[in-house]
Amino acid sequence: MPSNKPNISELGEKKLIERLLSRSHNSIPNSPFFKTFFDEFSLKSLEDDAALLSIGDNYLVVTSDLLLEPSHFPPLMNAREIGKKSVIVNLSDLAAMGARPIGIIMSMGLPPDLPLEDFDSLLEGILEACDDYDLALLGGDTNQADDITLCGTAIGIVDKNKVLMKSGAQKGDLVAVTGDLGLAAAGLELILGTSISIDLNPLEKEEAIKHALRPRARVEEGLMIASSGAATSATDITDGLLSEMGEITKASKVGIRFYENKLPIQPIVNKVASIFSKSSLEMAISYGEDFELLLTIKKDEVKSLKNLVAIQIIGEVTDSGRIEMINKDGNTNILVSKGYEHLKIINKEK
Amino acid sequence: MPSNKPNISELGEKKLIERLLSRSHNSIPNSPFFKTFFDEFSLKSLEDDAALLSIGDNYLVVTSDLLLEPSHFPPLMNAREIGKKSVIVNLSDLAAMGARPIGIIMSMGLPPDLPLEDFDSLLEGILEACDDYDLALLGGDTNQADDITLCGTAIGIVDKNKVLMKSGAQKGDLVAVTGDLGLAAAGLELILGTSISIDLNPLEKEEAIKHALRPRARVEEGLMIASSGAATSATDITDGLLSEMGEITKASKVGIRFYENKLPIQPIVNKVASIFSKSSLEMAISYGEDFELLLTIKKDEVKSLKNLVAIQIIGEVTDSGRIEMINKDGNTNILVSKGYEHLKIINKEK
Repeated sequence: MPSNKPNISELGEKKLIERLLSRSHNSIPNSPFFKTFFDEFSLKSLEDDAALLSIGDNYLVVTSDLLLEPSHFPPLMNAREIGKKSVIVNLSDLAAMGARPIGIIMSMGLPPDLPLEDFDSLLEGILEACDDYDLALLGGDTNQADDITLCGTAIGIVDKNKVLMKSGAQKGDLVAVTGDLGLAAAGLELILGTSISIDLNPLEKEEAIKHALRPRARVEEGLMIASSGAATSATDITDGLLSEMGEITKASKVGIRFYENKLPIQPIVNKVASIFSKSSLEMAISYGEDFELLLTIKKDEVKSLKNLVAIQIIGEVTDSGRIEMINKDGNTNILVSKGYEHLKIINKEK
Repeated sequence: MPSNKPNISELGEKKLIERLLSRSHNSIPNSPFFKTFFDEFSLKSLEDDAALLSIGDNYLVVTSDLLLEPSHFPPLMNAREIGKKSVIVNLSDLAAMGARPIGIIMSMGLPPDLPLEDFDSLLEGILEACDDYDLALLGGDTNQADDITLCGTAIGIVDKNKVLMKSGAQKGDLVAVTGDLGLAAAGLELILGTSISIDLNPLEKEEAIKHALRPRARVEEGLMIASSGAATSATDITDGLLSEMGEITKASKVGIRFYENKLPIQPIVNKVASIFSKSSLEMAISYGEDFELLLTIKKDEVKSLKNLVAIQIIGEVTDSGRIEMINKDGNTNILVSKGYEHLKIINKEK
């Protein structure tokens, strides 16, 4: 029966999280236990990629991600890749905080007719990722579900003085990313469009598909960025570059100006965009699924950070409160992002 | 297309977890980091209700539970009750370890057409449970899903010398539960059978339905049991008493003998069983969803523990390696449980 009452799709994910946030401040426990065991207790982490618990000189970092078969696993992704991705998404959240991974708990919803062979491949993927990133599988359980549903909870640790947050960016800082943009989007288009005969360099094609099916997390880069002390804020961009720029500008109360021609977009992304009549810019800044980090860096520490980690400067922090893109023609576009929604250009200034 | 290859339903949940367990031992990280930050690192907790991380004199306890709409939420359960239950199931796992709750992260999969009103009720339920048990909502995210899918990750803390595990039970210990058995099962039968006119005491009926729709976790009891030092092992029985007796006998390498006439079964359970042609014994020991604790206690400490916590002695620990039930006629039945499956009586001894 259709109803006139609003449903959650009208709000979108970010607004739902805000709703959760605005109400959850009531739930900070008053018990004296907190004051004795934890010398500090951070709830601002609700806005960040993970929760922080203060333990001595360190934060214990806890993050949880729920992956559901239809929305998070592209077609053609096999059970092993699904298992691996379920670990990687959590590791990417730890990387965004500059945390060292400790372990992961994996809760699984599985269809009863899942072949045992696929279950084993799923496990192999999970354990392979644990092995690659040197973390322990700490626990897990299985439940019956219609589709494969994986909820990973990863635990990490980071020095309190080194932790990377979304807040902290200051006017004059430079804005950077750790790698290519739009590659996962291009890979997905190629997977979905396999019936189309495409004349592309096989190596480039493979690289894009690999990004979509077998992402890796920037854990080492996150650790190095954190230990350098050069970054003023950071987050991962699995939800899309533009959306995460919005998060940083909001948390840090700043603006960001970036340059279209500085975005690291590989030729394959442009080629795929052209074949499938898509915008390569949208693939690079709105699609998401590129497991890279977005960070802001003190200007005079950029050079030394570049010696440690491969980063690409794409813009600078402003005090405008807005996200501006200087396009290839030198025009300024003011961009607005609503999470996963397509970008909107709301204003154009010369 | 049907296939001859085995699927996971032929193994069942416990066997799947064992499969996970047997492979995960490869994934203990070798990095020196572990040895420096954590003075001890426990993976045996994979068999327990939660993972343990050693921090000084305490264990940080982390548990994660995935709840899926069709299997975990009875019909008639409203959004607020669903939200509350998603917290309670995790708290019950902490209670089983004797841990004090710190906080919870809630990852939600939600259908896009979920009324905003229901989303708000869901949040209210989550926050109400946080309030009731004095824990913080540490984070959360929302994803699109066909059915309501809630993955809670709860964090708690327990003194290393007090932690309750499934291992530790010894021959001669007494076996106890913290409360009524079969009440949630009776409640569910009443919910499912509302079309049948039933002549029952309204208060008793309400109590049973409350157990099915609004369970509470034995957190205070778990804390008191842990601090008493009287218990040698413990677990929660949300998966069913018999199934969890199996877990304790396996982890502790013991047997359990219990007495049918000592099981705390309320008259309403017998009445409902009779109306719906069910076995009240099965409802009490196999159905699950009673959020009580099962524990083994050193014989000479039972009296002092009874002064602290309401417990019901139902049997004793043996060295038989089996689960035996002395039925009302004084006969011995050897029981076998396969997780959620119905109980099987495989042997009958006089």
